[in-house]
Amino acid sequence: MPSVALLTDLYELTMAYGYWRSGKSDDEAVFHLFFRENPFDGGYTVAAGLETAIGYLDALRFADDDLDYLRSLQLFDDDFLAVLRDFRFTCDVDAIPEGTVVFPNEPLVRVRGPIVQAQLVESALLNVVNFQSLIATKASRVTEAARGDVVLDFGLRRAQGMDGALSASRAAYIGGCHATSNVLAGARYGIPVRGTHAHSWVMSFPTEREAFETWSRVMPKNSVLLVDTYDTLDGVRHAIETGKTLQGIRLDSGDLLALSIAARRMLDEAGLEKVTIAASNELDEHIIADLKQKGARIDVWGVGTRLITAYDQPALGGVYKLTAIKPRGGAWEHKIKLSEQALKISNPGILQVRRFDAYDLIWDELQWSGGLQPAGSGDDLLVPIYRAGKRVYDPPPLAEVRRRREEQLARFDAGIKRFDHPDLYPVELEPRLADLKARLVASARGVAA
Amino acid sequence: MPSVALLTDLYELTMAYGYWRSGKSDDEAVFHLFFRENPFDGGYTVAAGLETAIGYLDALRFADDDLDYLRSLQLFDDDFLAVLRDFRFTCDVDAIPEGTVVFPNEPLVRVRGPIVQAQLVESALLNVVNFQSLIATKASRVTEAARGDVVLDFGLRRAQGMDGALSASRAAYIGGCHATSNVLAGARYGIPVRGTHAHSWVMSFPTEREAFETWSRVMPKNSVLLVDTYDTLDGVRHAIETGKTLQGIRLDSGDLLALSIAARRMLDEAGLEKVTIAASNELDEHIIADLKQKGARIDVWGVGTRLITAYDQPALGGVYKLTAIKPRGGAWEHKIKLSEQALKISNPGILQVRRFDAYDLIWDELQWSGGLQPAGSGDDLLVPIYRAGKRVYDPPPLAEVRRRREEQLARFDAGIKRFDHPDLYPVELEPRLADLKARLVASARGVAA
Repeated sequence: MPSVALLTDLYELTMAYGYWRSGKSDDEAVFHLFFRENPFDGGYTVAAGLETAIGYLDALRFADDDLDYLRSLQLFDDDFLAVLRDFRFTCDVDAIPEGTVVFPNEPLVRVRGPIVQAQLVESALLNVVNFQSLIATKASRVTEAARGDVVLDFGLRRAQGMDGALSASRAAYIGGCHATSNVLAGARYGIPVRGTHAHSWVMSFPTEREAFETWSRVMPKNSVLLVDTYDTLDGVRHAIETGKTLQGIRLDSGDLLALSIAARRMLDEAGLEKVTIAASNELDEHIIADLKQKGARIDVWGVGTRLITAYDQPALGGVYKLTAIKPRGGAWEHKIKLSEQALKISNPGILQVRRFDAYDLIWDELQWSGGLQPAGSGDDLLVPIYRAGKRVYDPPPLAEVRRRREEQLARFDAGIKRFDHPDLYPVELEPRLADLKARLVASARGVAA
Repeated sequence: MPSVALLTDLYELTMAYGYWRSGKSDDEAVFHLFFRENPFDGGYTVAAGLETAIGYLDALRFADDDLDYLRSLQLFDDDFLAVLRDFRFTCDVDAIPEGTVVFPNEPLVRVRGPIVQAQLVESALLNVVNFQSLIATKASRVTEAARGDVVLDFGLRRAQGMDGALSASRAAYIGGCHATSNVLAGARYGIPVRGTHAHSWVMSFPTEREAFETWSRVMPKNSVLLVDTYDTLDGVRHAIETGKTLQGIRLDSGDLLALSIAARRMLDEAGLEKVTIAASNELDEHIIADLKQKGARIDVWGVGTRLITAYDQPALGGVYKLTAIKPRGGAWEHKIKLSEQALKISNPGILQVRRFDAYDLIWDELQWSGGLQPAGSGDDLLVPIYRAGKRVYDPPPLAEVRRRREEQLARFDAGIKRFDHPDLYPVELEPRLADLKARLVASARGVAA
């Protein structure tokens, strides 16, 4: 079986070959992974995926099957395949811990080391960090909309493949979801799991009453009944008839506002004030906020397709850009990628992000030496993950990552959390860096002309 | 490590427990997997994912780690966990082969067997078939738009997780893509791989000229040069200077129409008529169709985010519905799920799809016995995959699946392939089935009132 080392775009390998063949294997390079716009027209992003990325980097070796396959492509010579066989990741990696609230142009991951290696990990890092940050951000918006209500990830059946479900459930938990329906995600990541029964359970019995009675008898500790197989309010009545074991009902269709209010009244009149009402059916942050604002009596929100695929924006456009290079025996050179759009011109250097009270500052470690640093006390967000290929960071438990997002987000003004026209959080370039960038742009345009 | 048996919504397991505890383990049930609307407002869908689903079903065993985890949930008793330990899949499965053109309400997969088992596989089957059919359909639209040009899947970095990339690359190939940038997808599925270099290759050299010369020297067999790192038409000039090894150039930004026409002229004037022009940058079927219609001189289309995530509709809403049940010792009973929307009322029975020249017919095998069948000669689309849990079907090679899509699609009128307001292909209910369904709806509404 080919290994995860092949989870890369072919061009990473052809470039690695090119660097090696042209004697640039020992050139050192720095790449940064960052995105240019918050997803969902929102005001912030939640960093996620680092632990998964670490799993990939820890496992990064070319197995014999990988090499056999690469040989079959007839693009690489045997000497290079021998180099890959002996490949060991020796880069420095710094990254912003998962659960951190981040903003456009801030590097989430920084990789520094031999250009062949630092280039090679591009595709996998982008794949993992783009997707998990996207879903953690979507989940953060959904749980903010639910204002403390329980939010469940129900997305497995509509997710983009098996891992599209697994890693999304992980990210959704980081983003504030309370539990998932995905049992494997529960087992693998320690996420609480939730779920009771489907319409098919009700349909498999002669009557809804019999289906509900049987359920409450065999699952007294997990008696949440789905009431809309036939007629929703009849279903509520039949659920109430199951008596004291009833813990909750779930609405999965129809007018959730009217039905939840009617169901709440029926439950309360039956003395079942503690029975919760869950709702599902194409929910997202906008529908939840609207239902709550209108007075829906829903305690638990089951969110599926629109969370697990980030339906309204199913990809985060993170990129991985070369920002400095140090030829063998030479000094560091800053690099930028030009673009006709100023927004798309990358920041050069070996970058760090410092968080102050009311703004973030991107600064370039290459421009500060001898322990000097930009003025002002704030926390630098990127922390060491690997040094010379050796891991120096232990990912915290997922529950801690989840708390981090919550605590971080609470510190920011409500303006960045607004769904419509959120405030733009200030991310400044440190003056030396801004100046250097301007000079490099002018010079590159000159060179290119 | 927990196994793929846990890749399920918790409610499948709680229902399984409920069926077992209430003595219904031996009831036989039939479920169908189908979707209600073609994705992308399109006129057809390409079935995909069956081989992956078979891989899941073949591997479906509960390992000790799985059982330990389930025990830790304190929802199930030990006798039930012992039942899971001895679990062997014994259902009959019929399905429409991958690469087949299908339409709304046609069952793609049919599972018949003990209700506990047939229910349990719901989540995983939906996950796999929904996603791969979605991407195969998107790829089919993109390759139709490209009218025979080469289409490359470049989506790994923006895909929804690692498997979101892998299984999407597989589905994109079924849908007509010619190759992928994803090396692991190439190794695992035998898909051709393609790719050359990124902007970072160019940036790592003092000049673009030197970067291109080095590339064409070390990779003479794969000399496709990305020309837009600084100025695109300068890049084309520098590529032309590399001489006879040049095989292609790639445009990744700017006005692809104007740039491709200018680049073609420059290449032709240099006597490089055979050098191909590839383009990438947020392409989809609509942009490709538009560029071709306007006369863009592009030979190869690299399609990323919008293909790999099916950006404009990132989930296919397939469902898995109980349609008949046979209590132990009893006879088959048809089942429907009501809905206020007539479109969402499922078809009852044990269903088959017969394809005639100008329409498809959904018929119910329960309503025909003794070898009798609906009149008219056509092919039944669902074929046996498992009988009593034993696999009776070998998935064809992927290249054959890919050809199947192409051959099938060629047989249909162009009207169903139109992007805007496509023709609705007729899918009829066989008269006996239509009559039964009407009676069941009336009766169920009566029961529910």
